[in-house]
Amino acid sequence: MKLKYLLIALIFNIANSNPIQEANENITSTSDGAPVNASDDLPMDILTNIAEMLGSVQTQSTVQSEPVFPDCSILSEEIKEEVRSHQHTVDRIINYLLYGQHKGLTYTTLGKFLDAFGPRMSGTEALESSINATLEAARLEGFDDVHTEDVQVPHWVRNQESAVMVEPRVKTLTILGLGSSIGTPPGGIVAQIIVVRSFDELQAVARHVAGKIVVYNQPFDNYFQSVKYRTRGAVEAAKLGAVAALVRSAASFSINSPHTGNQKYEDGVKKIPVACITIEDAKMLQRLTDIDGLEVFVNLSMGAVNLPDATSRNTIIDWRGTSRPEDVVVISGHIDSWDVGAGAMDDAAGCFISYHANLVLKRLRLRARRTVRTIWFTGEEQGLYGGYEYFKKHRNESENYQLLLESDKGTFNPKGIGFSGSNTATCIMQEIIKLTAKLNTTELKTRGGGPDISMWKSIGVPIGSLHLDTSKYFWFHHSDGDTLEVEDPDILDRITALWASVAYVAANITANLHH
Amino acid sequence: MKLKYLLIALIFNIANSNPIQEANENITSTSDGAPVNASDDLPMDILTNIAEMLGSVQTQSTVQSEPVFPDCSILSEEIKEEVRSHQHTVDRIINYLLYGQHKGLTYTTLGKFLDAFGPRMSGTEALESSINATLEAARLEGFDDVHTEDVQVPHWVRNQESAVMVEPRVKTLTILGLGSSIGTPPGGIVAQIIVVRSFDELQAVARHVAGKIVVYNQPFDNYFQSVKYRTRGAVEAAKLGAVAALVRSAASFSINSPHTGNQKYEDGVKKIPVACITIEDAKMLQRLTDIDGLEVFVNLSMGAVNLPDATSRNTIIDWRGTSRPEDVVVISGHIDSWDVGAGAMDDAAGCFISYHANLVLKRLRLRARRTVRTIWFTGEEQGLYGGYEYFKKHRNESENYQLLLESDKGTFNPKGIGFSGSNTATCIMQEIIKLTAKLNTTELKTRGGGPDISMWKSIGVPIGSLHLDTSKYFWFHHSDGDTLEVEDPDILDRITALWASVAYVAANITANLHH
Ligand SMILES: [Zn+2]
Ligand SMILES: [Zn+2]
Repeated sequence: MKLKYLLIALIFNIANSNPIQEANENITSTSDGAPVNASDDLPMDILTNIAEMLGSVQTQSTVQSEPVFPDCSILSEEIKEEVRSHQHTVDRIINYLLYGQHKGLTYTTLGKFLDAFGPRMSGTEALESSINATLEAARLEGFDDVHTEDVQVPHWVRNQESAVMVEPRVKTLTILGLGSSIGTPPGGIVAQIIVVRSFDELQAVARHVAGKIVVYNQPFDNYFQSVKYRTRGAVEAAKLGAVAALVRSAASFSINSPHTGNQKYEDGVKKIPVACITIEDAKMLQRLTDIDGLEVFVNLSMGAVNLPDATSRNTIIDWRGTSRPEDVVVISGHIDSWDVGAGAMDDAAGCFISYHANLVLKRLRLRARRTVRTIWFTGEEQGLYGGYEYFKKHRNESENYQLLLESDKGTFNPKGIGFSGSNTATCIMQEIIKLTAKLNTTELKTRGGGPDISMWKSIGVPIGSLHLDTSKYFWFHHSDGDTLEVEDPDILDRITALWASVAYVAANITANLHH
Repeated sequence: MKLKYLLIALIFNIANSNPIQEANENITSTSDGAPVNASDDLPMDILTNIAEMLGSVQTQSTVQSEPVFPDCSILSEEIKEEVRSHQHTVDRIINYLLYGQHKGLTYTTLGKFLDAFGPRMSGTEALESSINATLEAARLEGFDDVHTEDVQVPHWVRNQESAVMVEPRVKTLTILGLGSSIGTPPGGIVAQIIVVRSFDELQAVARHVAGKIVVYNQPFDNYFQSVKYRTRGAVEAAKLGAVAALVRSAASFSINSPHTGNQKYEDGVKKIPVACITIEDAKMLQRLTDIDGLEVFVNLSMGAVNLPDATSRNTIIDWRGTSRPEDVVVISGHIDSWDVGAGAMDDAAGCFISYHANLVLKRLRLRARRTVRTIWFTGEEQGLYGGYEYFKKHRNESENYQLLLESDKGTFNPKGIGFSGSNTATCIMQEIIKLTAKLNTTELKTRGGGPDISMWKSIGVPIGSLHLDTSKYFWFHHSDGDTLEVEDPDILDRITALWASVAYVAANITANLHH
């Protein structure tokens, strides 16, 4: 009723009041706040790599520009000829996947995997069961070496959660608590909200924040710019005395879809509960609080708990090399996911193309000189736990690493390979993917990698990833929409073929790609 | 665990079994079932009109082809000249909306309305409050006649609802109970599911249906073909002894978004609870049940109840004509919605363009010869209750009705007007919309109308609607995604300008458009 009298003139624009102007004038942004940088918690090269991996628009503060394509006249005709000699083999791989016995299998088996296990969050039985099944399958299949390496991973449990706007009217807000968030007391927190579009705006209203729930309604220009509010929103709000934070989902499109993800507390700053809300609700809360004199209250209830770390496993499946079996080319993805949707494009699909690429080589009896190793990393979503553990354990063998590839920005229409390596290695990679012209994947992008392999770059090991159309990635990322529906059988076949071709040729050529 | 052993070979395609073939061979469709026709409950012309209105692909059984555009040499130069004499007035309307004081107002006021009242299902206080506010506003604004006419509407309440796949693993299914569905007993129903893609497939497995929950996984070729499973799915399943039905949402795109809507029970057939599920979950349930020997169980719990009919109101706002005030041109939408999202494009936006078009005429002091009447129908979603009531009450005044327009297929990018009337009326309408060249809305489609005005066509009164891009309409329809986010300020301005221009000119010309 309060709302009715407050809004009626505005709603119908009685007396020519202009709500557009009012809304724009209501919040002015100042920039006297402390600079807030989401990149504090990751080294710059990893950060850049992740940004690139996610197809972010470049921002001056966080993303370096792409290296210039090298002058490939440096490459000897001999090396080029050696690469070209693999055309027949690459054609066999492509034909087997596009027209042969393996056609459609990456997709259908991915579907059955997702249907059987669902999403696979770190600490869950589903994750470990899915790894067990993979191990059994790979052993039954007869791979040379199938084993796991333990990784300690955070064990966060969502439990029941809800948010309801209780004033000025009752409206359920669709939320997803953020990974590592604490819960609320039973019954939840009821508090007035304060909505800001940026950390600068938060600082500008600093003295009004205590006791309130801070709602971040940051725009989505790119993932990097948006996700820092998910990562650090709770900490920055808590520093000013907020009792909880709600963060607009880092998404480029929404059908009222919340997108979860990780967040980080900071030592010495009070932990407050934090969840993401939908784009639609964030903008609605902004509009409501932009109305002078209108107070908006939310009841936030979260049962989230952080349990002791759990043990998960990186899964390693080798198709051994002939003459240099100790040298490896890695093709990989991460098998853990968030606990929503099915974790299909993020990142079971990356795991499945990496498994099937190796399986295709095996079924075609294509053994390269070096070992082709499929890795399914674990614990990626909570902070690259599997990737760091693998690096720690194996970095001293770095001379044995010819190349690491990871697919973790979806498996949409591929254009080629993203690659970070020396000039010579880049030129060789360009020659390699020329062999995949039938797949239409010959575009080399001079930056590549994946979160779990990003650390290898700093010690001279080349890393790479798919170069592909990521335009819809943030429609589905970390949401209930990340299911088999985002995948396409034919595209997966093309990607598996590309992945297998690059892995095989890189594993077979004489030249070493690392520095 | 059961699932693990059943699926492990399939998941990883061990031993070259081909899951694609298996999946395809598993269900064969026969067509010995009784023909099932969703159109039983509506007259053909209304049905055709609704199908057309919804931009459906034509299907031979339900949608007639569009009438041929008439030879407009029948139109006298005098009539054309009279229509053309309105160019200056139409330009004023367009300028006022696109560049003048009214720019952006349809959008911003729609936003405030949606924020204030939320969705407005028949029987709710929100619906009646929103109507009260509208009445007050229109009276404050100084419209000539602002009143309501009572309509008895169904009063269905959703209450708590949930569905969980409990075997072979635990997975929450995102559901929305369907309007008029009964609830389940407390604690819900736990039953095995049986999945079919069509009523034909249902008949083919008729003897396996008793005691089960029928899941319809019909494809979405067009809304009409798909929605009959929502409308009649429960009845057809109940005839075979099913205990409940779950229907794949009638949607063309999904981010795990269920789309609700109405369903109908049939006298003499046991009422069973029915809800819609998402495209993603429907396809997953199909894939799981396609696996030989795998039994899938769902726990469906719905608190839905049907209360006694409630009283709602059609809202009528007149901007009176000068010389022929008893004659009317109607511009309309329906203000009731489902109880999800905000009911923005379905159909608050249709109401708002109809209100603002009249408001623009009033503020520009453009009084036509005939009255321009804005109607916000009520009770549309449960079966056109407001439309039928208005027709019943006013059909005897049909000679006073020059034209009825309704906007109820969204307010996306407009191309022109859809129009159903005599050849002469069609040619005049073509002349009228030529005046809106600046809006890029000069395309006349020879079929138009809306659900609440569809019945007027049979008694010779011309009806029309927006002709527009409906390609994304079924992304959001009846879902939580139907919020202000689907609307665009500039497009709404163009539509309001088109609506106002057509209404004014049609209300001002000498010629009568009805037969
Ligand atoms: Zn990922
Ligand atoms: Zn509608």
